[in-house]
Amino acid sequence: MGYPDEHIHPHATGSAQKTVAQHQESQDLTFYAGWFCPFVQRSWISLEEKGIPYQYKEVNPYKKEKHFLDINPKGLVPALEYKGKALYESLIICEFLEDAYPEHKPHLLPADPYDRAIVRLQLDHVSKTILPAFFRTLQAQEKSKQQEGLQDLYKGLRQLAEKVKGPYFLGEEFSLADIAIAPWAVRDYILGEHREYKREDVGSGWKEYAEVLEKRDSVVRTCSDREHYEEIYGRYLRDEAQSEAAKATRAGKVIP
Amino acid sequence: MGYPDEHIHPHATGSAQKTVAQHQESQDLTFYAGWFCPFVQRSWISLEEKGIPYQYKEVNPYKKEKHFLDINPKGLVPALEYKGKALYESLIICEFLEDAYPEHKPHLLPADPYDRAIVRLQLDHVSKTILPAFFRTLQAQEKSKQQEGLQDLYKGLRQLAEKVKGPYFLGEEFSLADIAIAPWAVRDYILGEHREYKREDVGSGWKEYAEVLEKRDSVVRTCSDREHYEEIYGRYLRDEAQSEAAKATRAGKVIP
Repeated sequence: MGYPDEHIHPHATGSAQKTVAQHQESQDLTFYAGWFCPFVQRSWISLEEKGIPYQYKEVNPYKKEKHFLDINPKGLVPALEYKGKALYESLIICEFLEDAYPEHKPHLLPADPYDRAIVRLQLDHVSKTILPAFFRTLQAQEKSKQQEGLQDLYKGLRQLAEKVKGPYFLGEEFSLADIAIAPWAVRDYILGEHREYKREDVGSGWKEYAEVLEKRDSVVRTCSDREHYEEIYGRYLRDEAQSEAAKATRAGKVIP
Repeated sequence: MGYPDEHIHPHATGSAQKTVAQHQESQDLTFYAGWFCPFVQRSWISLEEKGIPYQYKEVNPYKKEKHFLDINPKGLVPALEYKGKALYESLIICEFLEDAYPEHKPHLLPADPYDRAIVRLQLDHVSKTILPAFFRTLQAQEKSKQQEGLQDLYKGLRQLAEKVKGPYFLGEEFSLADIAIAPWAVRDYILGEHREYKREDVGSGWKEYAEVLEKRDSVVRTCSDREHYEEIYGRYLRDEAQSEAAKATRAGKVIP
């Protein structure tokens, strides 16, 4: 098919490359990943936080290989293979890791049922409001559409930041609510360079919260060098990207 | 503002009316509901399945009253108030009921971590694929758009039905995977009457599964008379509805 995205940098760089090197041995859990993908990074942060043994396998989702499609018919990363069974969808993987490895701390969902529900509401807000606005802003070609996307993004981030107790969403406890948004805190500089986005323009403490997130050890350990993210995001900025998120955004549909 | 939806039938009818009558006393949990709303019905089925004590309060979401908006700033039903704390979003409420009332059986999520994840994938498929197609089909005014929506809906329902072990999604065990779609099995006759939808045209056992769902006791107990649903759906069929789902569908956005 010759999608331009086939030619992405083939592996992680920087601190993520070291993390990959430490997870080459066969384990009960195989983690199918793309180093550049923010959805992958969510599941990867959870694995690193909880110290779960896993084998990292780099997949280029635009060149779908047969074994990978057998595991995950949707062909999306992240995916995992756990004792011969397959699973996909970033946040569902994160919840699975909580359920399947109860002895691995920290717990990424609070014990109190109401607090758990509040975390789930925050995940819902990220998925339904923040990410669609992020991708619309990134992919919009007309200035007016970029500005419209940016204002939606600011509003969504402000609503999120208002609920952060500090330093993390729940207070001292790091949780799935932080993991759900962290990969976009890592990548928002792209909007800063190309879409007039400024963290301080969001308000309500988003800037401080985003800085806390990008300094978290598990986040740092799953980040590649900025220059390689820029190469990926160039395709989004020109609205040429062929990822599922990019195609859905272009068609005005739900991000799968 | 004078939205037409303000003038909907003011309360449940049929078997749902009896259920409402049995839940008028004050309890730790207040359930804010709209008798006609399929999202409400999901949480309502969960309450009925688990035999959780609750007080039912009918809210017209198009006439937002102050106390209700204090509980739920989004102004959407379903919402609940539990020991003074508020919660909303249908599936998040269902999961909360599981977590907050562990002694109430049946459990609506399986104990096995992988099976739980499989249920969550099904919920995700209903939210991201089936419901957007259902509302697009319902609200489309041009024949070609109706047909396009219908084919998307068939495809989504077929993918869902293929995974049903029978009689329920997980086999003998009734779960959240069944609850997530049941209210639309109850309402699909509207598409049958106005959009050429036929259960048997979906294939893969959808017809049989939908019949099982609509006969489940908790589903029956939360259903009003068909004539009153028709009154509600007339507004959707003319694309005049002002619910959040209707407005989002019209704007090509994610259903909130």
